[in-house]
Amino acid sequence: MNKAKKAVILSSGGLDSTTVIAIAQSKGYEIYSISFSYGQRHLYELEAAKLIADKANVKKHIVIDCNMNQIGGSALTDNIDVPKNRASDHISDEIPVTYVPARNTIFLSFALAWAETLGASDIFIGVNALDYSGYPDCRPEFIRAYEKMADLATKTGVENTTRVKIHTPLIDMTKAEIIMTGTELGVDYSITHSCYDPSEAGLACGECDSCQLRKKGFTEANIPDPTRYV
Amino acid sequence: MNKAKKAVILSSGGLDSTTVIAIAQSKGYEIYSISFSYGQRHLYELEAAKLIADKANVKKHIVIDCNMNQIGGSALTDNIDVPKNRASDHISDEIPVTYVPARNTIFLSFALAWAETLGASDIFIGVNALDYSGYPDCRPEFIRAYEKMADLATKTGVENTTRVKIHTPLIDMTKAEIIMTGTELGVDYSITHSCYDPSEAGLACGECDSCQLRKKGFTEANIPDPTRYV
Repeated sequence: MNKAKKAVILSSGGLDSTTVIAIAQSKGYEIYSISFSYGQRHLYELEAAKLIADKANVKKHIVIDCNMNQIGGSALTDNIDVPKNRASDHISDEIPVTYVPARNTIFLSFALAWAETLGASDIFIGVNALDYSGYPDCRPEFIRAYEKMADLATKTGVENTTRVKIHTPLIDMTKAEIIMTGTELGVDYSITHSCYDPSEAGLACGECDSCQLRKKGFTEANIPDPTRYV
Repeated sequence: MNKAKKAVILSSGGLDSTTVIAIAQSKGYEIYSISFSYGQRHLYELEAAKLIADKANVKKHIVIDCNMNQIGGSALTDNIDVPKNRASDHISDEIPVTYVPARNTIFLSFALAWAETLGASDIFIGVNALDYSGYPDCRPEFIRAYEKMADLATKTGVENTTRVKIHTPLIDMTKAEIIMTGTELGVDYSITHSCYDPSEAGLACGECDSCQLRKKGFTEANIPDPTRYV
């Protein structure tokens, strides 16, 4: 019997990474999901990530504590207002205040460390170059450069046995296409969390960039939005 | 008056990174030192890093908490024996059990995040390709690949304003050369900590790879070794 290949997947508890888990499972990978407590202003996404890992029956789910508040520089970790109700055509134009410096670089590095320990060479990340073109570390050229660096950073790189592969199945998909793909694969989006600024009870604000992109995605996919908004 | 350029420096509290701080200061950089509480078995190196930052009068010193125990795979974070009294010509031959998977990749990523927030584009790391040839992430080709990736990971990369530079002033130096350089620059090596397996009182074991390389360095440099051994 062939042993399933292991994949390390960055899981934020959001719509995108949950879809990535379903895609990787549909390709036969055994899933190791990793989330980060990085000083974000709310922890609903970590609860969602745990719930998603349970429901998807992943092999193992871990949460890395890495406080980035000392580094600062983002509305997601600092006391900076999250923008609300921006026109959707302005969302992708610039690097948003919700950008966390080098976040994907840091997250991928922990995933790389875990992959090396597990003997895995496949890492999945739900970056998207369309909806988040403003984030430098969501671009395909960043991912390719990361892959090259990762090969040189690890034992397998030195021993030249396997090459690290960073899979980005969502990179060219619209939010609607992501939602349609996940829905076909049976993803339950009601347990995913995307909002940058949820209420104290954990309900989505409906007004931040992330909520707006999500709403628009469900509308365009013509699929009912199961998100609980305030 | 010219404003000093900011440099982010990875500081482990050890001999190498302390020398790097002195070198960067001698080049006129304003120093931001960063250390990591990553689940290492002892915290003497963090105390040393703090003391070194104070003595060197750095602009700011931060400690990032990022527990790597969940990832495992190293004698420095797991319950694996640290090798003792190995013949020195065997030390560099293979990837040692003290190698922490992707550690430099992770550390550099936090440094990159901080550099971006500070508006700095210079990062210093005390990697050495001679004494630690067994560590994949101490090799020059890894550093160059990291630099390329870093340029694409950050705002400045997108805006094409400045290029990230990873400085590795020790990369081709022997331990003796490092010690001679630091001594000329006034480094007090008595407060640096290199031992992988110190006593409960924080004294160096004198027998692990790191202690042996350090001892040999002082002998070859013909400089008295101020290290307190058990």
